[in-house]
Amino acid sequence: MNRAVSIKKLLGKNFDALLVSSTKNIIYLTGFNGFSNEEREAYLLLTKKNNYIFTDGRYSEVASRINGFKLIEISSGKNFKEVLGEIITKEKIQKLAIDEDNLKISEVIQIKKVVKICPDESLIEKLRMIKDEEEINNIKKACNLGDEVFKYILSEIKLGVTEKEIAKKIEIFILKNDAEISFHPIVAFGQNSSSPHHVASSRKLKKNETVLLDFGVKSEGNYCSDMTRTIFFGKATDEQKRIYKTVLNSQQEAINFLKSSIINHQSVKGSEPDKIAREYIKSKGFPTIPHSLGHGIGLEVHEKPSLSPRRSEDMLQTGMVFSIEPGIYLPGFGGIRIEDLVVFHKNGLEIITRANRDLIEL
Amino acid sequence: MNRAVSIKKLLGKNFDALLVSSTKNIIYLTGFNGFSNEEREAYLLLTKKNNYIFTDGRYSEVASRINGFKLIEISSGKNFKEVLGEIITKEKIQKLAIDEDNLKISEVIQIKKVVKICPDESLIEKLRMIKDEEEINNIKKACNLGDEVFKYILSEIKLGVTEKEIAKKIEIFILKNDAEISFHPIVAFGQNSSSPHHVASSRKLKKNETVLLDFGVKSEGNYCSDMTRTIFFGKATDEQKRIYKTVLNSQQEAINFLKSSIINHQSVKGSEPDKIAREYIKSKGFPTIPHSLGHGIGLEVHEKPSLSPRRSEDMLQTGMVFSIEPGIYLPGFGGIRIEDLVVFHKNGLEIITRANRDLIEL
Repeated sequence: MNRAVSIKKLLGKNFDALLVSSTKNIIYLTGFNGFSNEEREAYLLLTKKNNYIFTDGRYSEVASRINGFKLIEISSGKNFKEVLGEIITKEKIQKLAIDEDNLKISEVIQIKKVVKICPDESLIEKLRMIKDEEEINNIKKACNLGDEVFKYILSEIKLGVTEKEIAKKIEIFILKNDAEISFHPIVAFGQNSSSPHHVASSRKLKKNETVLLDFGVKSEGNYCSDMTRTIFFGKATDEQKRIYKTVLNSQQEAINFLKSSIINHQSVKGSEPDKIAREYIKSKGFPTIPHSLGHGIGLEVHEKPSLSPRRSEDMLQTGMVFSIEPGIYLPGFGGIRIEDLVVFHKNGLEIITRANRDLIEL
Repeated sequence: MNRAVSIKKLLGKNFDALLVSSTKNIIYLTGFNGFSNEEREAYLLLTKKNNYIFTDGRYSEVASRINGFKLIEISSGKNFKEVLGEIITKEKIQKLAIDEDNLKISEVIQIKKVVKICPDESLIEKLRMIKDEEEINNIKKACNLGDEVFKYILSEIKLGVTEKEIAKKIEIFILKNDAEISFHPIVAFGQNSSSPHHVASSRKLKKNETVLLDFGVKSEGNYCSDMTRTIFFGKATDEQKRIYKTVLNSQQEAINFLKSSIINHQSVKGSEPDKIAREYIKSKGFPTIPHSLGHGIGLEVHEKPSLSPRRSEDMLQTGMVFSIEPGIYLPGFGGIRIEDLVVFHKNGLEIITRANRDLIEL
């Protein structure tokens, strides 16, 4: 409820009520994680006087038990626009803030019929960027299990195993440890690893191939981890070793830059560490990274801030948790990516994925 | 590609290009299932002259191999609005149809800067409602595995097991059988079953309790199944037996109605079987079903048509696959739901979930 209270302080300036629709924002404000990510099953409405949760009969019993929110049931007899309209009238709401990056245009068309709308400027996403101690601990728990996954899966990498089999083993291991995957594991052998988001296939592992493993865990508190390691099944060639070292060094360069910025109390934009790693890789004669250097993580695997050349006006701040994941991808040859999560503390940068980053030859 | 071709026949009337954004529609048109459901990673654009796929560097290698689509890469140097704008100009596109139920308002604001937009009237969703033989076979495969899950999980229902443990066992069983869950299993013991979409908890199973199991499988072809059974751990009371029988009979009433409509070549709206089951349950003195009687299923667990009182102007037709899932829910007491999938054939109604529907006492 404190989170809802701190958001309500923002009401009244440009808008007098806030409609929350993203499932992750609903978890953030209520703690309830039962709504689908793929379908619209609920909304929250924060007004000056009240907090409401709108949902249908499938969830009304559980929603009625959520602290600090009044349940408004949507039914086949009364749709969302109608029940929202009643509250808008009763509470004399003039201007409703909506989540521009979440509401569908068809929903906006309906809502506009009952109230004037304006964007919420990602209010909740901005709060979510800065993690409190409990949130950081939840992410660390997920990372710890991620480290265990990596240790376990190394023992399962054998001649002839398929990418899909490895991905499945990762999923089952995570489930058996009372957690969930935060995304479908990326498992890529040999040439397949040149595609940064390769979909695990039936390709079998051969001798002297790279194995790229990118996976994440969602802990009990719904907080995610994310990590990537690229290992060598057999012997790495000199060229592979050079690529690996370049990726590892570029990551370390970005980490060192962040560490020294923190020590020197210098403010840092998300685009700055991205530039450092990217330029390092290019300076060694390799192509630029075809994705961002990193992304925030929390209730979502990818959230703010962004560490990318263009979208990264975000200032990096105390309490942020994000990935640093440079990669070199050479079509027809393969790719190498190393990804770790870090916490931006007041007095330093903490790496919270602890699995070995040295070159591994199995 | 045939699907893209048949959609392109619709261009030129009200709009001269179609922007496809939903991940499921992208799978439907390209067969590629690697894009995230939770983030926007790709768009398709069908114009009179060309088919384009827009995605970023993480997917460009694989997207370049998708048959019949030209890859347009979105990068930090060139965002979607810019690359779209170039094609709009080059191909002189006047009016772009968009998916109203999928595009976010923030995306629409960007797209409107380069072209006039209009809703696509769910063109692809309407095509997807009618399944071809291959799609029906894929759904049947998922249902068959679902039947196996039910058989297996009955052997795991024991005194003291928790809802979460059962849910986890279902997930692992499905993974081990080379498939995925189509949604997080709903497992509810005793009173918890009165909440139709209960989230599996740490509650332990006691003697003489109901066990509600609602789960689905996603087969290799990305087609979903969905089924619900409610069983009794111990002996059912007379009242529980009466409720069970009422639910089962209401389902059978809806099935019989559909069967006779097909035989008599009578057209049927989705709301009609809903009404029959709903009225039957109410006539026995129980509360109305707090959800729809059923929903279409395919690439999504919930898709068109809808079998509900209000939203169901959809006419039921040959080739549709949907659920029939009446339930009675009594807060403080518990709930009973029975859900099966059926195929609407030209000459009959086929039930494709085959697990026993008789009252089971374990």
